[in-house]
Amino acid sequence: MPKYSVPKGFRDLPPDIMILRKKILRIIEETFIKYGYDPIETPALEYWDTLKGKYGEEAENKLVYKFKDPWSEKWYALRYDLTVPLARFLSNHVVQFPFRRYHISRVWRHENPQRGRYREFWQCDIDIVGSPYPEADAEIVNVLSEAIENIGLRNFKIKLNDRRMLAGIFEETLSLKNVISVYRIIDKLDKIGYEGVREELAKAGYSNETIEKIIEIISISGSPEKVLDEIEEMYGGNRKVGEAVLHLREMLDFIKYRNKVSVELSLVRGLDYYTGPIFEYVVEKPKIGSIAGGGRYDNLIEIYTGKHTPSTGGSIGIERVIDAGLELGIFRLDMKTYTKVYVLSLKHDRETYLYASAIANMLREKGIPTQVDVMRRSEQAQRRYAIKKGINVVVYVGPKEVSERRATIYDRKSGTRKVVDLGRVVEEVLKFLEG
Amino acid sequence: MPKYSVPKGFRDLPPDIMILRKKILRIIEETFIKYGYDPIETPALEYWDTLKGKYGEEAENKLVYKFKDPWSEKWYALRYDLTVPLARFLSNHVVQFPFRRYHISRVWRHENPQRGRYREFWQCDIDIVGSPYPEADAEIVNVLSEAIENIGLRNFKIKLNDRRMLAGIFEETLSLKNVISVYRIIDKLDKIGYEGVREELAKAGYSNETIEKIIEIISISGSPEKVLDEIEEMYGGNRKVGEAVLHLREMLDFIKYRNKVSVELSLVRGLDYYTGPIFEYVVEKPKIGSIAGGGRYDNLIEIYTGKHTPSTGGSIGIERVIDAGLELGIFRLDMKTYTKVYVLSLKHDRETYLYASAIANMLREKGIPTQVDVMRRSEQAQRRYAIKKGINVVVYVGPKEVSERRATIYDRKSGTRKVVDLGRVVEEVLKFLEG
Repeated sequence: MPKYSVPKGFRDLPPDIMILRKKILRIIEETFIKYGYDPIETPALEYWDTLKGKYGEEAENKLVYKFKDPWSEKWYALRYDLTVPLARFLSNHVVQFPFRRYHISRVWRHENPQRGRYREFWQCDIDIVGSPYPEADAEIVNVLSEAIENIGLRNFKIKLNDRRMLAGIFEETLSLKNVISVYRIIDKLDKIGYEGVREELAKAGYSNETIEKIIEIISISGSPEKVLDEIEEMYGGNRKVGEAVLHLREMLDFIKYRNKVSVELSLVRGLDYYTGPIFEYVVEKPKIGSIAGGGRYDNLIEIYTGKHTPSTGGSIGIERVIDAGLELGIFRLDMKTYTKVYVLSLKHDRETYLYASAIANMLREKGIPTQVDVMRRSEQAQRRYAIKKGINVVVYVGPKEVSERRATIYDRKSGTRKVVDLGRVVEEVLKFLEG
Repeated sequence: MPKYSVPKGFRDLPPDIMILRKKILRIIEETFIKYGYDPIETPALEYWDTLKGKYGEEAENKLVYKFKDPWSEKWYALRYDLTVPLARFLSNHVVQFPFRRYHISRVWRHENPQRGRYREFWQCDIDIVGSPYPEADAEIVNVLSEAIENIGLRNFKIKLNDRRMLAGIFEETLSLKNVISVYRIIDKLDKIGYEGVREELAKAGYSNETIEKIIEIISISGSPEKVLDEIEEMYGGNRKVGEAVLHLREMLDFIKYRNKVSVELSLVRGLDYYTGPIFEYVVEKPKIGSIAGGGRYDNLIEIYTGKHTPSTGGSIGIERVIDAGLELGIFRLDMKTYTKVYVLSLKHDRETYLYASAIANMLREKGIPTQVDVMRRSEQAQRRYAIKKGINVVVYVGPKEVSERRATIYDRKSGTRKVVDLGRVVEEVLKFLEG
């Protein structure tokens, strides 16, 4: 028999994981909604032309799932993030600014699969389209912080930087032209370390002197006040640096968890489209790495709409968050089913089935998820099923119960068994469920 | 400037549509959960080998999005339904039987785009894996009926048939071998009419006599009792027909909306994998057509797991449901945002922004979705924004409010304006929202 499997780097989500995920996603979504964000959805597929040139060379050549549509001969791609689709969306829809939207959905990247990293994963994005101001950037950080905190992850740090600050310093001190290619190397710092960065910069043709200067610059990190004062003193004359420092100071003023923020010049973020503040949420204990991030992208949407549209946004990566939460013991896979009650049929004839269904329907009407037997199995087999599923309340019905219009309720947690009239089944079950 | 658009046959879902969809999907999901179904998710992509040979020739050649993975040279396909992925899932996961799962997610088919039909659409699937019995089929029909009713669509009919009944009659009276190819032609009846069916059967090489006999058979329809009695009398000696009639009678016994059911021999359903009862939900006024359907597939899962695993399931197509509901006036796109309150800043300095945010946060803590200004716009521009979004309660804050620790609440619905102390803002806003 051929073996069928899930494609490499992809994975199924069975009920226990889904129940946990849905709970977490619901909390994140409710946080987004409270701050005024509304949902949109876009197709999994975009024309390749729509995505091309937005993420950087490596992403485009190695990570984007591209394919030729066999019918139209057009090139399609599976979306790589939710930000470029938002920009494309805005060229096809009229919206009011500020446009606050959230988008919780999946994206595809041909990464090397590893713990917490899959080729298909869900992003929880929020963006404010239309505002150039620091309060918009601060709001994004505040909403993400609150969402992350609401799901129980309190042990995070926020790394902050600004693309203008980095570009300004590199221009000023090194007269670097192609900063994007340098960013790409710096972006690998966590993976390859300072030595690796040195090597790659050397390979790219930079002199030792330049390399050491770059290393020195990206080593700057610490409390926002200290780092920004330092940078202003050293490079404040540069227009870009000046703008960045001013913007970050205003932004920091509006950030709730300021004590969790550090300014780190080694933070560059992988994507090409960022233009201003960038940030990343990291969990260091256990070493989970980045669980959320984002930044300002003032020039991206204009490519699609023809209108200058300053925007800022961020995204929580749910796979990493769940891995982090499970490792920290904050989440547990403790629910195998939503079902609360199992109605066990002691006989498998029409009458017993209809009686069992009637009881199940009474419970369902009160919102209690209830299963009935559809396997015509023995009492023991049904009981075993309920136990394996973690369903604690079992309602027994057999010929005796049918003729007497009663039911026997058994609660596994307390070990209690109780025979009740049909009219009192719901009430008694509720007592067991609450007890 | 290049025009960027959504791929042909695909579409974006803006906030008003998403808010409606999420409401409808939530009702459907809650119904599924009440009956004991639990969620799973599977990847958008499957290996093409996994899907091959399950849906029928036309689907595989014309409708499945297939592409070669540029890295592994393996062929992938975007999933075409949620049933084959479930079968594949079961070969990779240990589950308890009966395995009741729901799966609400998107699938891709290269259809000709038209009203209510897209190349990417969402299915709401429920399945019971492991039970060969009619009560399982009846449960699927009952859950789908209740879900469809719960979202407000009461004007549906249920067409019922059984693949064994059709196969048995065709064998008995016509000695047909390749019934699947005949099914495929009959499946087009709604689109091409009886004349079209006659033509296609002729093209496939059937004699006029056979064709007229087929037309006669597929014209049989009516109330379950009448049709089943008739068929039993005429073809009851055939083993397959006998099994089907018995199964359908037991199933009908457990169906809640029996008065909505008709047995129709022209119902075949497009997919190859069905083996027993099949059914379809149709809305005839307005002529929306099929909004849900399903059936029994006792042999599909064995292909993946090697174990005989009788199963049955069904699916609601959310796109058609929404189109039907909008046309029937049951649904309206009347919510552009979840946001209930807009905090309007009359001045754009640090103090006013922090005061506005503090008020917004008090409201958010009570679960009231609230937006603040991040555009530094005039009072008028902000008011216009709130009106366009349909946000009726506006809280004004300016230097006067900041210094007096007050806020001015305006309710557009009643035209009321009220100045209140900071400590009473939440309470007063709640009154406006409820009023």
